[in-house]
Amino acid sequence: MENPGCTHAWRTLAEKPRTMLVNFTKMVVKLGKDDPRRIIHSFKFGFALVLISILKYFRPSFYAFGDNIMWAVLTVVLVLEFSVGATLGKGFNRVLATGSAGALAVALRKIASYSGDKGKLVLTSVTVFFVAGTVTFMRFSPRLKARYDYGMIIFILTFCLVSLSENSENDLLEVAQERLLTIIIGSCIAITVCICIFPVWIGQDLHNQIASNVVKLAEFLEGFRDEYFNNLENTAEAENDKPFLHRYESILSSKTSEETMAVLARWEPCHGRFRFRHPWNQYLKIGNQIRLCAYKIKALSVFLLRSDTTPYEFRSRIEEPCTNIIMESVKALKESSVILKNMAKSPMPNPHVANAKNAAESLKSVLRTNPWEGADHLEIIPVATVASLLIDLVFCVEKICEAVDELANLANFVPSELLHRGTVQPISDNDGSVHVISIAE
Amino acid sequence: MENPGCTHAWRTLAEKPRTMLVNFTKMVVKLGKDDPRRIIHSFKFGFALVLISILKYFRPSFYAFGDNIMWAVLTVVLVLEFSVGATLGKGFNRVLATGSAGALAVALRKIASYSGDKGKLVLTSVTVFFVAGTVTFMRFSPRLKARYDYGMIIFILTFCLVSLSENSENDLLEVAQERLLTIIIGSCIAITVCICIFPVWIGQDLHNQIASNVVKLAEFLEGFRDEYFNNLENTAEAENDKPFLHRYESILSSKTSEETMAVLARWEPCHGRFRFRHPWNQYLKIGNQIRLCAYKIKALSVFLLRSDTTPYEFRSRIEEPCTNIIMESVKALKESSVILKNMAKSPMPNPHVANAKNAAESLKSVLRTNPWEGADHLEIIPVATVASLLIDLVFCVEKICEAVDELANLANFVPSELLHRGTVQPISDNDGSVHVISIAE
Repeated sequence: MENPGCTHAWRTLAEKPRTMLVNFTKMVVKLGKDDPRRIIHSFKFGFALVLISILKYFRPSFYAFGDNIMWAVLTVVLVLEFSVGATLGKGFNRVLATGSAGALAVALRKIASYSGDKGKLVLTSVTVFFVAGTVTFMRFSPRLKARYDYGMIIFILTFCLVSLSENSENDLLEVAQERLLTIIIGSCIAITVCICIFPVWIGQDLHNQIASNVVKLAEFLEGFRDEYFNNLENTAEAENDKPFLHRYESILSSKTSEETMAVLARWEPCHGRFRFRHPWNQYLKIGNQIRLCAYKIKALSVFLLRSDTTPYEFRSRIEEPCTNIIMESVKALKESSVILKNMAKSPMPNPHVANAKNAAESLKSVLRTNPWEGADHLEIIPVATVASLLIDLVFCVEKICEAVDELANLANFVPSELLHRGTVQPISDNDGSVHVISIAE
Repeated sequence: MENPGCTHAWRTLAEKPRTMLVNFTKMVVKLGKDDPRRIIHSFKFGFALVLISILKYFRPSFYAFGDNIMWAVLTVVLVLEFSVGATLGKGFNRVLATGSAGALAVALRKIASYSGDKGKLVLTSVTVFFVAGTVTFMRFSPRLKARYDYGMIIFILTFCLVSLSENSENDLLEVAQERLLTIIIGSCIAITVCICIFPVWIGQDLHNQIASNVVKLAEFLEGFRDEYFNNLENTAEAENDKPFLHRYESILSSKTSEETMAVLARWEPCHGRFRFRHPWNQYLKIGNQIRLCAYKIKALSVFLLRSDTTPYEFRSRIEEPCTNIIMESVKALKESSVILKNMAKSPMPNPHVANAKNAAESLKSVLRTNPWEGADHLEIIPVATVASLLIDLVFCVEKICEAVDELANLANFVPSELLHRGTVQPISDNDGSVHVISIAE
């Protein structure tokens, strides 16, 4: 007789590896789909290593010391990174650190060789202790760590290896030369493969990320308008199905990744429309302004979840000015993202910012007239808070647009006459000047 | 005759290195002052390397192959990290990856050796390409990267080195064994030095950081109360001098560092009052709730800057319930931070959370009576927004306290009878139950 419990247990046991395999495959497919450049990078990595082994086969003289191929392999594995900036930074760090540490260690060994056998041990120990300790301490400095962390590790490593090596001084110089040469060859292979085969420019990535973050803010605001000033009562339940209301959340914790990208982008040479000394710091400033805006949006999103507790009637009384603020802010953000996307400067200041400010002023006038006369104060406070946060938001949007314009100036984006498609309503500014833009598609 | 411009230029030139040196010294002193453990770590690093060189001097038989000391040095330099968790993780990764990659490569070489000279080259190239490419692709998975990134690099490295090495199969096994042994010795030295000399437990750091972040929120709220409900008009100017109003800002971008710490903490064995399987994930949950609270506070802080535009009269009308909310929230947060600090569970649910909720209810009743009857609507909206955000904040504080209580349960904190010092006012709960706590100091 069959034991049903036992069969079940067996089935579960057989299921587990299968589910694991399915999950694993799903993960792999997702990784590749999210960014197909990852697959290309994996191929590049394999290719670079094969290149070394082929080189060794056809030109064994390259690696006079049998063990030296190791250093080329080690260099390629450690230097070849996903982006050009990271690869160049690491290659530069590696070559420079190996050279300087090797020279220092050889010089110190020369000095140590004049003392006796025991004196040499003591001197070597003292210098290793001192140099390794100092450089390790330097690694704690955030500024040095961001740019030269890898170089500092390699410095310690090379210094210790040369200091503690058993070769005699004359052999050592020869070994050091050969090794430096192998490391340079390895770095060159890594850099060549990285730049020549479908290069990934991290500067371009940073640029795209900032532009797409601006769009994410705009998308949220559009979604917020549709949801909040909407007569349906089922907003709270359906909220989870609307991804555009959550997409901006990635911005909240993007500070670290943006800073890393900006540091790496500095290593990249002129590529596409980016110069060598592109103002990468300005991207961090734009990123900070975007994040400040995202924090506000986070506060705003609470009221979306609770909008069903506020009668639609109250919301509708400030609908028009709020919608105007949102629409103009969205247009201003989208215009900024177009400036970034096309790298083409707008010929005049963003007119939608002025419009959004005017819309904020008219919301203020509406609020002054006490639109909720006689209503329960507690019920109108959430609506009033939304109004207040929206007025605040205009300020944030202005800052973002200003930072983007500053970037356009710093990076010498070309002026574009055809940037504004469609028609912008003429609205008088606070200072009385009038923008009229009307360009046919 | 002396050229004053030239003298000036010379002086500037002479000043520059001096200022640089002064700045550098300041930076070094600041690094050491911020965390004196950094100085100890630098000493530990130097000491570990000296240990190897001394070991080599007294026990040359340890390093039968002259070059093998390199692998011990390399291991110590790359494995010895600031915290025990990072060192153990890297050591484990290194030994496991070296062992498995070496075994795989030796096996594949054995197979390749049956084909001819050219066949061997092709087979080696294909396996190197395939293995390196696959592992490189795996490194893009965020989950694997967090824990095993170093191991995966070492896997590729070892696999390629063994595959491309020129030694014969028999030599190879011997070399591989010796090398693995040296790497194990290096890892052991690194781990011993790291654990035995003033160990830095990253789990403890994470625990302290979360506790101090809770305190930072409480400090901001206290500062907010003092500043906002204060009759002086010079709030805006003086705001920059008050560091407690900005200290919470570090929380906004702490997500990445907390996640890294939690991953590293998992490697740490039982230490102090932390078990091996301490619920580190719960710290991330608390951290997320703290961050949500910090986003709200960011929105709140805008109104502090602008408080001088709202007449004090309007602010004062909701001063009492708002102050109650803030005071009870602060007490609730401080109690949670005490639970974390002492790792001692409170015998009953946090009474201040219930009090804060009651205070929020009474603020709502005050708002219902329309405290600003007849005032300009536009002027009261900022005050109303502050009230609304404070009501929201109670919810966040409750979530934080709940998450801390959950941690206390998961981590089996010991119950403490003496946790509540001083007296807590009895305030009836929503459900009618009454907490009375009154303990003498």
